[in-house]
Amino acid sequence: MFQTAELGQKVSREDFDRVSNSLRTELLELQQDLRKADFPVIVVFAGVDGAGKGESVNLINEWMDPRWIVSRAYTTPSDEERERPDAWRFWRDLPPKGQIGLFLSCWYSQPILDHVHGEISTAQFDRHLDRILAFEKMLADDGALILKFWMHLGKDAQKRRLKSLEKDPLQSWRVNKQDWKNWKLYDRFTATAERALRRTGTGQARWEIVEGEDARFRSLTVLTTLRDAIRGHMDDRAARLKVIAEARARASAHRNAELAKVHDARDTMEKEAAAAAKDPGKKKKVKTVDLSSDGQIRGLTVLDAMDMTQTMSKDQYGLALKKARAELAMLSHQTRERGISTLLVFEGWDAAGKGGAIRRLTAGLDARNYQVIPFAAPTDEERAQHYLWRFWRHLPRAGRLRVFDRSWYGRVLVERIEGFALPEEWMRAYAEINEFEELLVRHGTVLVKFWLHITKEEQYRRFKERETIPYKSWKLTDEDWRNRAKWDEYTIGVNEMVERTSTREAPWVLVEGNDKNFARVKIIQAVCDHLRQRLG
Amino acid sequence: MFQTAELGQKVSREDFDRVSNSLRTELLELQQDLRKADFPVIVVFAGVDGAGKGESVNLINEWMDPRWIVSRAYTTPSDEERERPDAWRFWRDLPPKGQIGLFLSCWYSQPILDHVHGEISTAQFDRHLDRILAFEKMLADDGALILKFWMHLGKDAQKRRLKSLEKDPLQSWRVNKQDWKNWKLYDRFTATAERALRRTGTGQARWEIVEGEDARFRSLTVLTTLRDAIRGHMDDRAARLKVIAEARARASAHRNAELAKVHDARDTMEKEAAAAAKDPGKKKKVKTVDLSSDGQIRGLTVLDAMDMTQTMSKDQYGLALKKARAELAMLSHQTRERGISTLLVFEGWDAAGKGGAIRRLTAGLDARNYQVIPFAAPTDEERAQHYLWRFWRHLPRAGRLRVFDRSWYGRVLVERIEGFALPEEWMRAYAEINEFEELLVRHGTVLVKFWLHITKEEQYRRFKERETIPYKSWKLTDEDWRNRAKWDEYTIGVNEMVERTSTREAPWVLVEGNDKNFARVKIIQAVCDHLRQRLG
Repeated sequence: MFQTAELGQKVSREDFDRVSNSLRTELLELQQDLRKADFPVIVVFAGVDGAGKGESVNLINEWMDPRWIVSRAYTTPSDEERERPDAWRFWRDLPPKGQIGLFLSCWYSQPILDHVHGEISTAQFDRHLDRILAFEKMLADDGALILKFWMHLGKDAQKRRLKSLEKDPLQSWRVNKQDWKNWKLYDRFTATAERALRRTGTGQARWEIVEGEDARFRSLTVLTTLRDAIRGHMDDRAARLKVIAEARARASAHRNAELAKVHDARDTMEKEAAAAAKDPGKKKKVKTVDLSSDGQIRGLTVLDAMDMTQTMSKDQYGLALKKARAELAMLSHQTRERGISTLLVFEGWDAAGKGGAIRRLTAGLDARNYQVIPFAAPTDEERAQHYLWRFWRHLPRAGRLRVFDRSWYGRVLVERIEGFALPEEWMRAYAEINEFEELLVRHGTVLVKFWLHITKEEQYRRFKERETIPYKSWKLTDEDWRNRAKWDEYTIGVNEMVERTSTREAPWVLVEGNDKNFARVKIIQAVCDHLRQRLG
Repeated sequence: MFQTAELGQKVSREDFDRVSNSLRTELLELQQDLRKADFPVIVVFAGVDGAGKGESVNLINEWMDPRWIVSRAYTTPSDEERERPDAWRFWRDLPPKGQIGLFLSCWYSQPILDHVHGEISTAQFDRHLDRILAFEKMLADDGALILKFWMHLGKDAQKRRLKSLEKDPLQSWRVNKQDWKNWKLYDRFTATAERALRRTGTGQARWEIVEGEDARFRSLTVLTTLRDAIRGHMDDRAARLKVIAEARARASAHRNAELAKVHDARDTMEKEAAAAAKDPGKKKKVKTVDLSSDGQIRGLTVLDAMDMTQTMSKDQYGLALKKARAELAMLSHQTRERGISTLLVFEGWDAAGKGGAIRRLTAGLDARNYQVIPFAAPTDEERAQHYLWRFWRHLPRAGRLRVFDRSWYGRVLVERIEGFALPEEWMRAYAEINEFEELLVRHGTVLVKFWLHITKEEQYRRFKERETIPYKSWKLTDEDWRNRAKWDEYTIGVNEMVERTSTREAPWVLVEGNDKNFARVKIIQAVCDHLRQRLG
């Protein structure tokens, strides 16, 4: 695999000087164009010690404008990093759209070293590589340009290089004992590297193997590869954006046509709902009609199967709430002591009572340990990143509990239904979400996801109530009525979401919310169950 | 001081129930109004253990909507926090405008405990209190509502409270050995607390002493105080915003009038500049005319006193650059090893060569250790915070070097000149900046500030050059020409900035930039000097 990088390729000083000036200009111009692009550039530098990884990063920073470059090198994680899944430190450093991130000793480094030193088995190593694949795929699917340089030196060349660095008083600090220890493991290192490169080189995130011995050859190779990749990706994206714009226009036209149908039927539906709300005895099952954009016809959904008649009397409620809260306080104290993080995700219909349920839940907790994070429109810093970035950034530290009021599931609910995400985007989101949640759970986070369900009639009643109560009226917007008109589409979305993302470790808890008392107690009890189980 | 909080005040259950419903509604409504306000609410809870600090925070979270409340309690700092000035952890948690931050065991906690346990002298304690005063003043001046609750219990009442908590199986975890140890120090604790309260109770950030024994009395006191304070502050701000709007309008009218004058004179100035650029021999001193908004007439500024004829030949430059860079590489390797952070601030005229100088500087550094952060328009997350917040968030970790391309000095330069900041705002900024920089320096950060100076003629030449070179033309905007028309105002601003913010520990280095070679070498050498000095 590395033979082509042990050929002793060189570039003469004259040749280098001849091309370097125009290359510099090209790179600077390109960087200005890139700043307006809708994707980030992620460049990984890995390889043999002494093969010029650091020097390449330095050179890029020197030749291009470092103001729009993020360079990161990773050593021991900080405690704030250790308290989150491994990938957190990389996510927090990702460059925003229009910028370049240069990553040294990053996500490949630890797994490769661990495997070389025999600290993980080949099977474990492969699992790490799979995670890396998923991570890079996620970013590339979102438009990121990912470039990976493997800087190579033959065994003898590495020895020469280390010796010459040691001799140079200005460079000698670059070489330490560990470097020589690693050199003795050269063959094992390259064998492991080969495996990593073979398994993680994809069409979306290619490896470029660079012969590192000659600085001029290496520099020109890295810089021209970078230039061509950025230029090519910009062209691809431009073409792609046209296709996307057309797809969005089609989706939007289709949506409007559907919406018109819904509006025709709405009056009737409203009247039925009002009548049913007045006379619950006569309530009849509203059949799910085919309104999904993909033309699927579904009989029953998980929501239809819920027993929405469950209630809890005021007395029962008082008692049960007190008991559940007390237990929750104890359990969350224990998770804090043991450094176990908890993430509670709340999704549900408008007016399903998320806010109230969250307040009743957190009232049993010590405010020192929890935080409620509402997710509405992303900020501009968030919009410049992958859609999961803003959830990564709010992950709790060890022992803390966070409640997410709405979450990454917006991708397969509102973004899907409203067409903000294209079908290919929300369809692949299930896999991205499962991957993300698996990282959380593997890290030891307790993750529970609640869907607060109410019937369409109950929602109507609550909307009407909100209209009349002054301090609730701000909660009701036109948006809510519009979403209500798409009830059936959302039902299909929820059903599919539960089907595809409810796992044993990160289950969906469907909460019958027509009776608020019942719902609130059920939620707190469910949190207790999961904490108890995790505490063992 | 605390007698009024040892009266055994109580509220009956009936009275509490009677008012609580309407109070809850008021608080919820108020919170919705607050979300639209242009200020954050910062609530500090301090006081005697067991006096209900945590419970009050819990209650506010239960009664109000926790989605727009940030609750924070502080224990041992994380390593990322330890690597920055003490205040960093508080700055990073500040609530944005429109939200409420509840702070437990925060900035008062450590100084008070340290003083009680005799770990710091009274003089040191007072210094901590002065820093707190400056911190709170800075936030309050920016519009923040700061409310500080001192939750009090008499010595016997505290004993009773701790005992009763211990007996309650649901609460017993709240009490530990340290609490009883602290109780034995009760008298010293209250004496220290009195000192703290006396010295930090200001009109902008009052202390409210709350008797903590009776939960209902305590809760009603806290909640009604909070309600009234928010309401009052909202009214004050509304009145204030009118005054501000008028002041801004006046400032803007004044500016336009001045600008007209400048424009009249501009043609002549341009011609003179062009002539001078063509024939440097004939260059004559452009006298600073009175254009400052406060009518000050200045003869010479620090900029006039600079010898702008200094140059460096290409040969000298090559040699000196190489030498300076090599030294910088060594020194910055040592600062990394010793965990010393470096912050280099670059300000200067448009086209003064900041970008190029930064690139030549960083080229001597290991890209693993440095980052260049450009500060242009703030993001929306940054706009929702105090103007210094975005600089706090980018402070380097231990051993790292950061270059800030533009900085907090924008407040007293562009924001002053363009009238984005009102006179009272930029005038108090000198004190805020000095306070901020003192925290950095006291923490051990090497802070060097560069003003890149060029003559007006040289700027003209470079603007013209930029117009013709394709990969530089993006750099030149109308903004630049507009700023140039305000050269004299900026000169006065720079002079005052240097006068008021150049300290021995955080000096301004004025760089003669007409000759780029000279400037670049001078900058790198200055950084070396400061690093060498710091390394001792």
